[in-house]
Formats: sequence, structure tokens, C-alpha cells
Amino acid sequence: MTRRRLFKGRSRKAGLPPGTLVHTGELRTGGSSISCISYSESGFNESRPLSFEQCPSPGDGVLWIHLDGLHDLDLIRRFGERYGLHPLVLEDIVNTSQRPKLEDYGDYIFIVTRRISLNGEKSVDGEQVSLILGPGYILSFREGFDGDIFESIRERIRNGRGRIRTMGADYLSYAIIDAIVDDYFTVLENLEGLVEDLEEQLADGPTQDVLRKIISLKREIIFMRKGVWPLREVTSALERGESQLIAEASRVFFRDIYDHTIQVIDGVETFRDLLSGMLDLYLSSMSNRTNEVMKFLTVVGTIFLPLTFIVGVYGMNFKYIPELQMQYGYLYCWILMLSISLGMGVYFKRKKWL
Amino acid sequence: MTRRRLFKGRSRKAGLPPGTLVHTGELRTGGSSISCISYSESGFNESRPLSFEQCPSPGDGVLWIHLDGLHDLDLIRRFGERYGLHPLVLEDIVNTSQRPKLEDYGDYIFIVTRRISLNGEKSVDGEQVSLILGPGYILSFREGFDGDIFESIRERIRNGRGRIRTMGADYLSYAIIDAIVDDYFTVLENLEGLVEDLEEQLADGPTQDVLRKIISLKREIIFMRKGVWPLREVTSALERGESQLIAEASRVFFRDIYDHTIQVIDGVETFRDLLSGMLDLYLSSMSNRTNEVMKFLTVVGTIFLPLTFIVGVYGMNFKYIPELQMQYGYLYCWILMLSISLGMGVYFKRKKWL
Amino acid sequence: MTRRRLFKGRSRKAGLPPGTLVHTGELRTGGSSISCISYSESGFNESRPLSFEQCPSPGDGVLWIHLDGLHDLDLIRRFGERYGLHPLVLEDIVNTSQRPKLEDYGDYIFIVTRRISLNGEKSVDGEQVSLILGPGYILSFREGFDGDIFESIRERIRNGRGRIRTMGADYLSYAIIDAIVDDYFTVLENLEGLVEDLEEQLADGPTQDVLRKIISLKREIIFMRKGVWPLREVTSALERGESQLIAEASRVFFRDIYDHTIQVIDGVETFRDLLSGMLDLYLSSMSNRTNEVMKFLTVVGTIFLPLTFIVGVYGMNFKYIPELQMQYGYLYCWILMLSISLGMGVYFKRKKWL
Amino acid sequence: MTRRRLFKGRSRKAGLPPGTLVHTGELRTGGSSISCISYSESGFNESRPLSFEQCPSPGDGVLWIHLDGLHDLDLIRRFGERYGLHPLVLEDIVNTSQRPKLEDYGDYIFIVTRRISLNGEKSVDGEQVSLILGPGYILSFREGFDGDIFESIRERIRNGRGRIRTMGADYLSYAIIDAIVDDYFTVLENLEGLVEDLEEQLADGPTQDVLRKIISLKREIIFMRKGVWPLREVTSALERGESQLIAEASRVFFRDIYDHTIQVIDGVETFRDLLSGMLDLYLSSMSNRTNEVMKFLTVVGTIFLPLTFIVGVYGMNFKYIPELQMQYGYLYCWILMLSISLGMGVYFKRKKWL
Amino acid sequence: MTRRRLFKGRSRKAGLPPGTLVHTGELRTGGSSISCISYSESGFNESRPLSFEQCPSPGDGVLWIHLDGLHDLDLIRRFGERYGLHPLVLEDIVNTSQRPKLEDYGDYIFIVTRRISLNGEKSVDGEQVSLILGPGYILSFREGFDGDIFESIRERIRNGRGRIRTMGADYLSYAIIDAIVDDYFTVLENLEGLVEDLEEQLADGPTQDVLRKIISLKREIIFMRKGVWPLREVTSALERGESQLIAEASRVFFRDIYDHTIQVIDGVETFRDLLSGMLDLYLSSMSNRTNEVMKFLTVVGTIFLPLTFIVGVYGMNFKYIPELQMQYGYLYCWILMLSISLGMGVYFKRKKWL
Repeated sequence: MTRRRLFKGRSRKAGLPPGTLVHTGELRTGGSSISCISYSESGFNESRPLSFEQCPSPGDGVLWIHLDGLHDLDLIRRFGERYGLHPLVLEDIVNTSQRPKLEDYGDYIFIVTRRISLNGEKSVDGEQVSLILGPGYILSFREGFDGDIFESIRERIRNGRGRIRTMGADYLSYAIIDAIVDDYFTVLENLEGLVEDLEEQLADGPTQDVLRKIISLKREIIFMRKGVWPLREVTSALERGESQLIAEASRVFFRDIYDHTIQVIDGVETFRDLLSGMLDLYLSSMSNRTNEVMKFLTVVGTIFLPLTFIVGVYGMNFKYIPELQMQYGYLYCWILMLSISLGMGVYFKRKKWL
Repeated sequence: MTRRRLFKGRSRKAGLPPGTLVHTGELRTGGSSISCISYSESGFNESRPLSFEQCPSPGDGVLWIHLDGLHDLDLIRRFGERYGLHPLVLEDIVNTSQRPKLEDYGDYIFIVTRRISLNGEKSVDGEQVSLILGPGYILSFREGFDGDIFESIRERIRNGRGRIRTMGADYLSYAIIDAIVDDYFTVLENLEGLVEDLEEQLADGPTQDVLRKIISLKREIIFMRKGVWPLREVTSALERGESQLIAEASRVFFRDIYDHTIQVIDGVETFRDLLSGMLDLYLSSMSNRTNEVMKFLTVVGTIFLPLTFIVGVYGMNFKYIPELQMQYGYLYCWILMLSISLGMGVYFKRKKWL
Repeated sequence: MTRRRLFKGRSRKAGLPPGTLVHTGELRTGGSSISCISYSESGFNESRPLSFEQCPSPGDGVLWIHLDGLHDLDLIRRFGERYGLHPLVLEDIVNTSQRPKLEDYGDYIFIVTRRISLNGEKSVDGEQVSLILGPGYILSFREGFDGDIFESIRERIRNGRGRIRTMGADYLSYAIIDAIVDDYFTVLENLEGLVEDLEEQLADGPTQDVLRKIISLKREIIFMRKGVWPLREVTSALERGESQLIAEASRVFFRDIYDHTIQVIDGVETFRDLLSGMLDLYLSSMSNRTNEVMKFLTVVGTIFLPLTFIVGVYGMNFKYIPELQMQYGYLYCWILMLSISLGMGVYFKRKKWL
Repeated sequence: MTRRRLFKGRSRKAGLPPGTLVHTGELRTGGSSISCISYSESGFNESRPLSFEQCPSPGDGVLWIHLDGLHDLDLIRRFGERYGLHPLVLEDIVNTSQRPKLEDYGDYIFIVTRRISLNGEKSVDGEQVSLILGPGYILSFREGFDGDIFESIRERIRNGRGRIRTMGADYLSYAIIDAIVDDYFTVLENLEGLVEDLEEQLADGPTQDVLRKIISLKREIIFMRKGVWPLREVTSALERGESQLIAEASRVFFRDIYDHTIQVIDGVETFRDLLSGMLDLYLSSMSNRTNEVMKFLTVVGTIFLPLTFIVGVYGMNFKYIPELQMQYGYLYCWILMLSISLGMGVYFKRKKWL
Repeated sequence: MTRRRLFKGRSRKAGLPPGTLVHTGELRTGGSSISCISYSESGFNESRPLSFEQCPSPGDGVLWIHLDGLHDLDLIRRFGERYGLHPLVLEDIVNTSQRPKLEDYGDYIFIVTRRISLNGEKSVDGEQVSLILGPGYILSFREGFDGDIFESIRERIRNGRGRIRTMGADYLSYAIIDAIVDDYFTVLENLEGLVEDLEEQLADGPTQDVLRKIISLKREIIFMRKGVWPLREVTSALERGESQLIAEASRVFFRDIYDHTIQVIDGVETFRDLLSGMLDLYLSSMSNRTNEVMKFLTVVGTIFLPLTFIVGVYGMNFKYIPELQMQYGYLYCWILMLSISLGMGVYFKRKKWL
């Protein structure tokens, strides 16, 4: 079982002055990789430079520099110097246990989001994706470095599909956040399948395994909540569009993400309710089942204890037991025992224990 | 069991640019059908055109174009072009997992509502109904296409009953939303019947079947909540009437729907409380019953175990057991056993176990 | 068991245009009765006219027309015409499942309240009382028609007791609402008695009957909450006194009712907590009792099962069982069994099972 | 068990006009007693007059008239006339089930507080203390009349300790409320001791007695909450100091009480959480214990039932049972039985039931 | 078990005038120790004076006087006189059960925080740290006196690392609060380890020990919540920076602490949810286990009770029992018993009890 650390490596930071860059994510060995794309209505230019120095500078169109992997602190520091980022911003980019937030620094907006993905259909993985939205450029920083999560956006830029090439950096930031929110829907759709499977298993009977799955799903939901609730505030702030970096025309798109975030929250809360209901059902079924087992034992015990007593009576060795001498004693004894059993049966039938 | 997908086909949309029309409802084969009605104080004109081109244009009175079924994306796109709708509006119309909301686009208001109906007296079905309220016209889009859910409104227009013919498009939007909210009352009234039936069944005894029904009703209530809570915000926004499209005189009607929405919410919350109470009652009754069964077993066991021991004693084959030689040994033995039983009986009576 | 319908007859209304008068209360056969009283500092004039036409018109003093029973829709319609009431107001007066609310229509204020009373000391009955507060007149409409619930107010008007004769219609509306809120205190006082009785019964032991009473009291509390929470908003609105119909001097009285409403809410919430505590106590006592029963069975079983085994051993018919041949075998056997019982007893004593 | 009536004697008031004085506290026979103290920086003057007429009038310094016991309605009425108090204020002073509140009547402020004290270390008693803060005078009304709860304040006035003699009536009101809030701390400190005792008892084992104490402590906490939550609003209103009767310099003191109130609320809420935790612990321990008892019974039953069966087999009287004829049959039988017991023992050990 | 007193020694204060200094912390014998450091961009000056008189005065740079241990009330009183502190401030500094708060006294800001640390890896200890932020100086007062909790800050001042030497007293207050909040992360990281250990233990089986640990962890979480929730308001007030003592440039740093506080709250709430989930799991596992034990007993009992009855039958001493005379009677009897056992086995297999 891999553990998800809530407070990964925070103590590595204790006692350091603010603005000190310490990457608190898992210490992976893979390197960082940069990808740049600059575009305008007329065309686009894409490159994957090996060093920061090879990155293009913001020009007339929109420049998007994306970094996968946050281990090269030196690289991030140089980004900070080049774009005049506040030391606390750099600290938050590499300290990947931030909760989603938006900070307006005047000449750029700093946005932290948390992207989620399914880890093998069962547990939910989260990674931090930070954005710097400046005039004419977007810098994006992603904690992980496997796969290319924004390929579909790049594809749209290349094809000129949709309106993306005709709009500014704010629209690009919208497209990126939209892709992140869409991943929540994918995860929710998968979780829904898991919940439905659980319901069917639970209908078969309450096993310890079902219980463990309910509890573990509940925990995944808790982690999703943690990521998505603050996202609502972020998108709401973008929708209000108080910054000059966000064009009036883009606000309707941010409202769209805001709506999606609310839908995700709605879904997460609904799952919570469903899982609570399943836990109730589990506990009640279990108590039902214990009751059933008890009734069975009681019925069997109540029928055989008196009978065993009776046969014990006639197994006694008293010198004089009249019944033993009767010719049909044995038969009478059976008749007695059968009628006792029958009486009990009728009694239990009436009590609905049988 | 048909499953209600919370996130129906959302993943079909992943990676597409915003504004791409993808219908995320169930893929039904039935076609869409258009119905148009235009009216003013003096008269009305009704038609069911087969194509978009045959639809009338807004004129002096009020024009209402209603579409059942959202599969013909091309048709919806042409609506969008004709009435200048924002691409995100079109996207929300066909992406039928929206939560109720109201968006004011200046020259038109976009309203999303969720209509519910009972599916075979037991589970609640929801479908999205979207409205475009523009100057002098209403466009309404409904997810399903069976039955004519707004027939009573059309009937009122034809008859000139009530004030509908004398008022504008805002009043028509009120009439449509009012009809949708009224359906919630119908469903609640039905659910109330189910709850009362359940209470009677529960009074008879806590069975696994009752439990399952309580849990499933609870789930229906969760789904109703999801639809009705955001409706409150929608109607509240309409009541405040910030848009020029809503006449001062119509606001009192929207306040009326607002009140109804609050009543529905009240009812939904009350049901939640009632169902929680029933679950408590169920669990307590079950624990009561287990206790009763246990007491029965304990009484029977406690009476017969000592007796069986005694008869066992006198079934032993020791060479010399004085009691066995006594003339009335058997009788004394019975007397002993009867007094033990009696003593036990009195003891249990006092403990209120009998 | 008479059932309290939450959504009484709402479906009778579906599809009708707004403003259509449909009485949704229980269909009682009794008729409506009107009572009028007009008063000023100098005197009063009281009458019980049989028809609307005989009702006096508002004059210099205060006119109060009260209607018991809402079945005569025609009568109510004539009230509406005479006093220029909005059709939706009339609809809300007869549709008696409104939640308490206040609506300011400019030249009159429409107030809906819910009065409660005890039905045979056990269940709580509610009925809608609506008020129209206009300049110099009060119209009040009550759902029920048995008894005269405002007799004490009328008595005060006749006697000129208190300040009622010297003040305006707003003070009269205060007096009416105050009487309604006072009924909540009466009901709460009664419920308190029931709760105390339940506590004593519960101290005697957790029976199924106590459980049922707790659950049913909880439900009554739920219904009271439904009525009293919105009343808070009504009285708060009156206290703020935004309408010209409410004199500055009367606001302090409305603040008084507001305080009372808060006290009622406080009481209702306290009862909820107390009842939850009783349910906890019930469940814990039950689990305690099951434990006790189990311990008893275990003690008896654990003592007698080994003994029965021993006597079974010496009841075996093996050719050669040395103990059986011993002279004091039987005695030794008893000594063995007694010491086993004693050992068990000591063991259970230590485990505190005895 | 003395009962604390939540709605003491409210029904005695029903139907009376507002402003009618009815004392709703317990009908005690003891009389009321007045104590007056007037002071300024230069000196003080103290008296315990027997009648209202002997009370001094407000002068240059601060006048404090305190009344213990509220049965002499006539006395209170004369206070009202002398100081121009609103009839509703007088009503609230004697109707001692008010919740804490603050009402600003312009030329005086009416403050209702609820003082608590321990009744024999176990249950919490509450009594209403009302204050009238006017220019240069304080009138205080206390429900009870045993002991002198404000002696320490009077002592400070006499000694001129602290700043009390140099400040106005508002500071005196602060001192009085501070003394009342301090009593909450005393009660909380006592409750903390009770909770700790309970925890130790619970560690020994979950008895019915512990359960009852937990539930009863929970109830006391509910009653404390009822008194202290509204006190927060009262002190917050005083801190904001909107009235001219409260000097700017005194506001910092009211902020101090506000902080104390928040601390009391914090403590009350923490106790609630602790008690809920103890209830959980109780229930889990009980379920643990039942499980333990069950395991014991099962182990004993499972070992002895098969053995008893075996000895039963060789107690049968069939003509031909080969084993019975074997020379070491009895020995073999014991070996068989011992190995069965041993096997069972190992099995239970593995299942951790032993 | 050492007890954490919630209301430590509050009663020692009852009846004293406000502003009286009474230290309500534990009465430790150790003395207080003062440490001073003054610094500016050019250099720093550090001293550990033995008496208040030796403390330097605020000059051009920043002066930080820190006091460990609050027993020397005289010393604190002299601080108050020297820096013109309000008596209530001094009272709050020594009365160490304050909840975190911020009070702006115009020429200085008074901040109360609660620092936490782990006591032997299991329970959480809290101590009050108060700050006075004045123009050019910081006074800090700490309840405990073991260790030097701010050594890392002093080290940074000495080294001139980071920006601390170039900024004012407000930045120093930020550094101090930041260090306090960082301790919360350390504690949370430790608690996370404890929670994970508990989960593993719980997976092995629900023991009373695990239960006790869950409950005790829950309690620690309750205490952490109490400290960290009000801290949010404190940092939020600092971030808004309404005081002139806080430079515009420092606000971004206070926003950083605000974010950290929110993260701590998030973590605390997540732990609460996790622990609730573990309690659910515990209870369900326990009920599961009881069910399993019951099933085992029922299976054993149900198989052996009928068999014992049968062997009892053939142990009876009736004169004439035909079966006993049959040659293969014993064999037939065994066949009968084996087939009964087999039938039972199949039945239980089907019921999934085996």
C-alpha cells in the first residue's frame, strides 16, 4: 500500500527563512522537461528547449512555457528572476502541498490548482499545477512529469481549432484550468462505476471486503473535496475578473469553469451522501444478519434442549421409574417429544422466527 | 435496474474545445420535434413545423418555440445562429447534466431547470429543460420527447384563460417554470404516500425489505435536493428582476415561484428528517428484537441446562449412588427439578425477561 | 391513525393558471363564519354578519374582519375585490400549505402564519392564519373554524384593557401574532411534560413503547420547527418596520414577538437535543441489556456444560471404568463438580460478570 | 429529582395584554430585598432600604440599586414609573425565561443575562439577572435572593480598589456582567473535574451508571449553551458601543468580556465534543464486551458440545457396541476427547478468540 | 496520566478587579529569562540581561525583547509601565488560557497565539505566546521556559540571511508567527504517522487498544482545532493590514501565513474525517466479528444438539426399545447421525455460514 502523505516533507522546511526553495514533493529521480509554444492568429512556433536560456521571450502573440517536474530548483529560480516573480510565489510552486488559490500580484496572477487522476482505477492521485498569467504569457508548472496532460490544448493551438489562436493569454489559462477540471469529471465517472459495483456486492451480502471498499472510497472522496472546494473560490475570483489581465470577453468562459466546479462539488457531495447511505445499509444488514443467526440458534436450542432433557430423564438409573416399565413407554416418549417439537414450531411460526 | 448516471457521458467531451456541441444525455433514437406558438391579446397562431426554416420569427406578440429532444445538434446550432446565442449556451443546452442556473447575457436570459417525474411510482427521473428568454420570444429546450409536458400552458393560451395572453414573454417564462415546480409537488405527494406505507410496514416489524426501501427513498430525496436547491437561486434572481427583460409587474409572480421552491425544499428536508427517524427506528427495533431473541434463548437454556445436568447425574453408573436406591428417588428428583424451574421462572419474571 | 398530509391536495391545482382559487386544506363540511369588530378610543362596535355585504367598511378607527373556515371561495373572492387584493394573495390564503411569510404589497401587508395546537395531548396540529394589514383595517383568515382562538383579544378591545383601543391596526396585528406565538409556548410546555414522562419511563427500562414515543415526539418537533423558523423572518421584517403601515411606536412590540419567536426556536432546538440524547440513552441501555442477558447465558452455560460432560462420562457403558468401581466414586465426582463450579464462580466474579 | 422547567409558568400569561406583569419563576415565599450604593471618586454611600420610597435618586456620581427576588410586582412597577421604563421591559424583568439580550431604548439600555451556578456539584442552575443602564445609574434585578452574588464588586467600591470609583455607570455594568461571566468559568472548571472522573470510571468499564452521567452532563452542557451563545451577541453589541451611554474608554473592557464569552463558548463546545467522544467510547466498549462474552460462550460451548456428544454415544444401550467391549476403551475415549479439546484450543488460539 | 486543564486556575481570579495580574498557568518553580536583540541593516546587538532595567530601549533599528516564563508578575508589570500597555493586555499575557486573538490599541498591536508541540509523540501540548508589535520594537512573552523556540530566527538575524535585517518590526512579527505555525505542520506530520500506524493495527483486528488510541487522537485533534481556528482570524486581520504598524510590503508575507493557517485547518479537518471513518470501521468490524463468532457457535450448536439428543434417546432405559435390539443398530445410528451432520453442513454452506 503506497501512502499518500498529507504533509509531505513539510518538516524539511522548518526554520528556513521564507522564500527558501525546498521541493516538498516525492523525491523522484527523473528530470524536468520544458516545452514552449508561442502563437498568434497567424501562426505558431513550438520548441522543447533543454535549458532555460533557450526559452523564447514574450512577444506579440501569446507565449506558453510549461515545465514538467519541479526538482530543478535552480531552473525555477531563474524563471523567477526572468519574470520578476515574488520569492513566496516560487516557494509555493515547489512546495507542492498548497491548496488551490489565486493571488493577484498586479502585473501577474498566480494560480495554484490541484489536478487529480486515477491510480489503477481505485485510488485518486493528486498533483499540483501552478500557473503564472502575465501580459502575453503563461508559465505553467506541474509536479509530475509522466505523460503530456495538456497535449489536447497544444493540438488545438496547432490546428487553429476553436477560438484559441484568436484570443489572449487569459483564454489560454482558461483552457488549461478547464482541462484540469475535466479530469475531475473523468475521475467522478470512474468512481460512479465503483459505487455501483459496491452496491451490487452489498446487495449480495455485507462482507468485510465491501466495508473496507466503502471506507476507502469515502476517503478518496474526502481528498477530492479538499482539492475541489478551494478551486471554486479560484474560478469565482477569475469570473469576477477584477484583474486587468483578464479581458471582459473571457469572463463568460471562467463562469463556465465555475459552473463545472460547482457540478464537481455537487457530485462529490452526492457521493458522500451515497456512501453514508451504503454504510448505514451495511450496518443494518449486518445487524439483520446477526439477528437471523441468533434466531436460528435459538430455535434449534429451544427445540432440542427440552428433548435432550426428556431423554436424559429416561436414562436415569433410579430403581423405580414407572414409565420405563410400561409396554409402550418408548412410543409414548416419542409422541411426547414430537408434540413438544410441534408446539415449539407453531410458537416460532407465530413469532415469525421461522 | 436501470441506472441513473450522474455524469452521463461527460468523458465523451474531454479534450474538445469549449463550445463544441456534444449531447451527453442517453443516446435515444427518437427524433426531435418542434412546436411553435405565437400569440397576442387579439389571437394566437400555432404550428408544428418539421424544419427550423419553417419556424416563425418574433413579431409584435410573444413567440414561443419549444423543442422536444436534443439529438439534432445541427438544428440547435441553427437556433444559436438565428438568435445570436453564445456557443457556451448551446453547449449547456445539449450537455444535459447542468445544475439549474440563470445567466444574463444582456439581450437574452439563459435559464436551466431540472424537471422531475416519477418513474413507475418508485424512482425519480430528471430531465433538463432550458429556456432562452429574449425580447418577445421564448425558446425552450427539453431533454426528453415523450408526452407534451406544457400542454396545459398551451391550452391556456388557446383559450385566453387567465392573464397569459395579455402579458409578455417574461410571464410565459414564469408559466413554464411554474409548471416545472408544480411537478415537484406531485412527486412529493407521491413520495409522501410511499413514506406512509413504509411506516406501516415498519410498525409490523423491521424487515430487510423495509430497510432497502428506506435507503432507496433516501437516495431519491438526495437527487431531488440536488435539483431543487439551485432552483431557489434561479427564482430568487428572477424575483429580484435585475434584467430589463423582466417587467416590474411580473416580479410578484416570480416571488410566487420562489415561495413554491422554498416549500419544495422544506418538504424535501422534512422527508430527509422523517427518513432518518425511520432508519433510527429500524435500527432500534432490530436491536430490540435481537435482545428479545437472546432473552428467549437464555431463559430456555438457563432452565434446561441445570435440569439436564441433574438427570445426567442420576444416569451415572457409579456402583454406589444412594439416591438411586431410595424408593421415591424418582419422585424426589422430579420435585427437585420442578422447584428449580419454578425458582428460575420467578427470577426471570422479576428481571422482566418473561 | 389520522394522517397529516404534508402536501395536501396540491395536485388538485396542477395545470391551473396562477391565481385560481383552490382550497387545499381538508375538505370539511362546516361553513365559514365572519366576525367583525371596529373600535376606536371612544368605543367599539361588534357584529357577526352572515354575508360579506353586511360587513362594515373601514372608517376612522380600526376595523377587524375575521373569517373562520376557508371553504367559501366566493366569499374570499369578494373580499379580494373589495380590498383590491392581488390574485396570488387570495390563492395563498386558501392554499393552506404555505410556510409563514410576509409580503409587502405597498398599500397592504400580507402575512401568513401557522398556528399550532395540541391534538389530544400527543400530536401537534397546525393551521394557517393569514393577515392582511391595511390602513385602518385588518383582515384575518383562519383555516379551522372550531372555537374562537382570538376571543381574549376581542375581550381586551371590549374592556379597553391595555393600550389596544388607543393604538392602530398595526398594534392589532401585533396582538394577533402574539396570541399565535403564545400558543407555541403552551404546546412546548405540554411537550416538556411528555418528555419528562418519557425520561421516567426510560429510567425504568428501554421498551419498544418508549422508543416509539421518542420517535413520534421527534417528528412533532420537526413539524414545529417547520412552522416557527420562517416566523422568525416574518417578525424580524415587522420589527425592522420598513412599511409605512407600521408606526415607529409599534416596532418595540414586534421586537417583543421576535424575541418570543427566538425563545420558541431555542426551546424547539433544545427539545431536539434532549430527544437525541434520549435516543442515545435508549440504544445504549438496550445494548447494555443485551450484554447483561448474554453474560447470564454465558455464565449458566459455562458452569453447566462441563458438569453435564462429567456426568455423561460416568454414564458411559464401557466395560471397565475404574472410577465407577471406587467406593466413594460418587462422592468424589460431586466434589470435583462442586470445585469446578466454584472455580468458575470465582473466575466470573473477577471478570465482573457476576 | 427536581425538575428544571424550560417554560416555567408561561401558560399563566396566555391571553393577557402585553406589559402585564406576571412573575413566571418558581413561586418562592421569601421576600425581595433592595440594596443601594451610590459612589463617586470622593466617597460612597450604602444603604439597604426596606421600601422603594427610601431609595436614593441618581445624583452626581453613580447610583446602583440592586433587587434580589422578583415577587413584589408592585415594587417593580414603581421602579418602572420612577425611571420611565417601557412596560415590555418590566414584563421581561419578571418573566424570567428570557434569553440574554440587549435592547437600546435611547435613554437607557436594557440588558438581560443568565447567571449560572452549580447545584450540589452536579446540575447547573440558572437565574435571570437584568440590568438597566441609564445615565448615572444602574438598576439590577436578580431572580434569586439567597446570598449576595455581587459582594466582591461592592467591596471594591468601598475600598476604592481598581478604577471602579473613578469611572461611570457603564463601567459598573461591565463589572456586573464580568462577575456573571466569571461564574461560567467556575462552573466549567467544576464540570471539567466531573468529566475527568467520568473518564476514569469509563476506563474501568462501561457501566449503566457512567452512561447516565454522560447523558446528564450532556444535558447540562445543552443548558449552558442556551445561556452563553446569546450572551456573545450582548457583549458584542456593548463592545461596538453604539449607545451614548457607553464611553469610548469603556469599550475595551466590554471587548474583554466578549473575549471571555467566546472562551466560555469554546469550552462548552469542547465539552460537547469530549462527551460525544465518551459516548462513542462507551458504545464501542460495550460492543467490545459483548463480543468478548460471546467468544467465551462460544469457546466453552464448542469444546464441550462435541465431548458431551461422545460420552453420550458410549452411554447408549445398543446390544452391540464394539468399543464398549475393548479393554482400554475408556482410556481411548479420553485420549480422543483430549485431542479434540486440544485441536479446538489450537484453532481458537489461531483465531485469537483465546 | 497528566491532565490538561482547560480552565487552569481561572477560579483563582474570581472576584478580583479587572487588570489584576494573576498567572493562571501551571505553577512552575523555574524563573523567567529575558533575551534582547536589536538589529538594523548594518549590524545587531544581542544580550541576555538579568533584570528589566538592563533591557535596551527602542532605537533606530528593530528591538526584540523576548521573555520565557511568566511567573515574575512584577517584571511584566514594569514592561507594561515602560511601554504604556493597557492593564487588560498585561492580564491577558499572564492569564494563559486566552484563545488566539489580535487587538489593535492604536500605538501597538497585541497578538495572542497558541504554540503547540508534541509531548512524547502522543499528546499535544499547547502554550501561549503573546506579541506586542509597536513602532520599531517587538515584545514577546512565552508561557514555557524550556528550550529556545525562536533560535532559528535569531540565527537568521545574526547571519543576515534572508531579508529579515532589511525589514521592520512587522516583518519580525511575521517571522515569529510563521515559526509558530510551522510547529503545527510538524505536529500534523507526526499525527499522520500515528494515524497510519493505527490503520495498520485496525486492519489486523479491532482491539480495545486501537479504539482507545482513536478516541485519544480525536481529542488531540479537538484541542488543535481550538488553537488554530482563531489563528485564522488573527492572520487574516494582519493580511488586511489595517494598522499603520504594518507596512504595505509586509502584507504579502502575512497572506502567506494566512494560507498556511488554512492548510493547517484543512489538515486538522481531514484528520477529523479520517478518524471518524476509522471509528466507523472499528464499529463495523466489531459487529462483523460478533456476527462471525455467533455463526460459529450456531453452527456447532446446531450440529451437536440434535446428535446429542439422538444418543440420549438410545441411552434411555425403557424396557422395550426395538432399535437397541437390532444387530446393526449402533451402525445405523452412526449412519443417521453422519447424514444429519452432512445435511446441516450443506445447509450452512448454502447460507454462507461456513
